[in-house]
Amino acid sequence: MANISILGTGNMGQAIGGLVAKGGHTVQQLNTSNADQPVTGDIVILAVPHAALTDIVATRREQLTGKVVVDITNPVDFATFDDLTVPADGSAAAELARELPGSKVVKAFNTNFAGTLATGSVGTETTAVLIAGDDADAKAAVADVVTAAGLRAVDAGSLKRARELEALAFLQISLAAGEKLSWTGGFAAVA
Amino acid sequence: MANISILGTGNMGQAIGGLVAKGGHTVQQLNTSNADQPVTGDIVILAVPHAALTDIVATRREQLTGKVVVDITNPVDFATFDDLTVPADGSAAAELARELPGSKVVKAFNTNFAGTLATGSVGTETTAVLIAGDDADAKAAVADVVTAAGLRAVDAGSLKRARELEALAFLQISLAAGEKLSWTGGFAAVA
Repeated sequence: MANISILGTGNMGQAIGGLVAKGGHTVQQLNTSNADQPVTGDIVILAVPHAALTDIVATRREQLTGKVVVDITNPVDFATFDDLTVPADGSAAAELARELPGSKVVKAFNTNFAGTLATGSVGTETTAVLIAGDDADAKAAVADVVTAAGLRAVDAGSLKRARELEALAFLQISLAAGEKLSWTGGFAAVA
Repeated sequence: MANISILGTGNMGQAIGGLVAKGGHTVQQLNTSNADQPVTGDIVILAVPHAALTDIVATRREQLTGKVVVDITNPVDFATFDDLTVPADGSAAAELARELPGSKVVKAFNTNFAGTLATGSVGTETTAVLIAGDDADAKAAVADVVTAAGLRAVDAGSLKRARELEALAFLQISLAAGEKLSWTGGFAAVA
């Protein structure tokens, strides 16, 4: 069992909260109305919109030191829906890791629609959570949370692969918005 | 029915050849031993490794003028397996389109493993061919070839989206190489 904090109580925060609870972990779930409350988990999942990361870094950097920090964000430019807001050769996760040098930043959950975390499936496939990061233990800890809930954890490589995870998610969101993929489906990983 | 030329007789060339034949189209299939033979199709599918595009452009630019040219390539740096060989803010398809200003360049088939084109399925899902391009008629022509073979055609947007299609494919190849996805599976699109 792990102590897990989740920042965010939106669709994704709720879905990840449900997932974590299935595994029997201790969960602390906070949102902006609990901004004064320090995070207590060893794994801190930032289930917030990308734009909220700046504020979290500014207010919680010290609290996040030494912890596994999970970035689930997709930095989609929703004004144009034609680009990401991070440099093409980088990623939201890489930027977060630079801001939090004392934390172990892991990219995960950004390629999963909330509904597929709740149901545990994408079509007939078990929902796969793609996990990228530079710290093997941190990735394994996140993978344990995923598999304890009955989902599939897939090690997608180093944190550099967050770039491809964010590209995949951007494409998935844009196809779902165009009704070419469903919000309860998306890309399934067939092993 | 369309007149279709396929350059390349490798795994992908054969799989796409089989697909095109299913739709009852006229097919001309060439490889490097037919370098002297001009392409006759209205749709020309470049089923070659990315590195071969330079030579095709140099020798066939005139022949490709006015035609729909389908780029299926993935510019993976196979030396490092950690990057693409095209600029991060571009794509192989965007580079090809710049080299062939008189052609209608479409990105398609690069996110499909050959086996899934032959079987028509990824797991229990019908194989979806993601198609990106700036010319609606050219995309529709490629979509017709795909759907005539019983596969699903998905309009993924403008040619700019080739960047995400190449990122998805790179991730898919790297996961399959690591035995985390199967070469007969990959990412299925769940509608």
